[in-house]
Amino acid sequence: MSSVEYDPNNIFAKILRGEIPSHRVYEDDDVIAFMDVMPQGTGHTLVVPKSPSRNLLDADPATLGKLMAAVQKVARAVMSAFAADGVIVTQFNEEVAGQTVFHLHVHIVPRFEGVALKPHSGVMEKPEVLAANAEKVRAALAG
Amino acid sequence: MSSVEYDPNNIFAKILRGEIPSHRVYEDDDVIAFMDVMPQGTGHTLVVPKSPSRNLLDADPATLGKLMAAVQKVARAVMSAFAADGVIVTQFNEEVAGQTVFHLHVHIVPRFEGVALKPHSGVMEKPEVLAANAEKVRAALAG
Repeated sequence: MSSVEYDPNNIFAKILRGEIPSHRVYEDDDVIAFMDVMPQGTGHTLVVPKSPSRNLLDADPATLGKLMAAVQKVARAVMSAFAADGVIVTQFNEEVAGQTVFHLHVHIVPRFEGVALKPHSGVMEKPEVLAANAEKVRAALAG
Repeated sequence: MSSVEYDPNNIFAKILRGEIPSHRVYEDDDVIAFMDVMPQGTGHTLVVPKSPSRNLLDADPATLGKLMAAVQKVARAVMSAFAADGVIVTQFNEEVAGQTVFHLHVHIVPRFEGVALKPHSGVMEKPEVLAANAEKVRAALAG
């Protein structure tokens, strides 16, 4: 295993502190959710606990329950917002597993019949597309 | 979205009822964990809540916290048992997303430098390999 140190200057920590912007769709006392800027498909959303941990392996178990309750809410919302046929939920631990940002996060990726996933951490999406998709998720969460 | 009916005769419900065997590595009041018989890699383990739901979308949120606390325990154990470099945690909702058994479950797949994942639901592993790997995970959980 690589170092398990938590780096407070990772990009999600900066988003949590409001130091860099995100297309936020949900926030409660324990988590935020925002659009992935390099989506594997339409509506790819991330849920991030406010409590710092490198990944699942070093997280406080109490954080996980709150995180997954929010993941369920957001997963239902993206299913509705994009009329998806299914949704995958993934969480990567350490670089070999595809983790690129070392603050615990869960990927929610809507799936559609006949549409393949794009590679993880592939191409940056246009900000206007992310903004429009975020609006759809927010509307689904409010509805 | 497909039907959200829960079928009590799905294979994981049968494993939970002890009607068919599994290479079990963990059990508590709320979940069981056992080796995936078609592993995507060495040590691929499933964690399954005892409470019935089709997938994440219709699960009781209280179930999710207990499920993920167990996922964390088992993920740590497989990292240790197989000296893995990382681990992916995945959960599929509906057929288009790769769900093949319609009882909520979480995949824990150890990752190793230089070793690609095998396809999801690919080839059946030899029972003696599964039994040996299950013993390693049980030892890591006990250790």
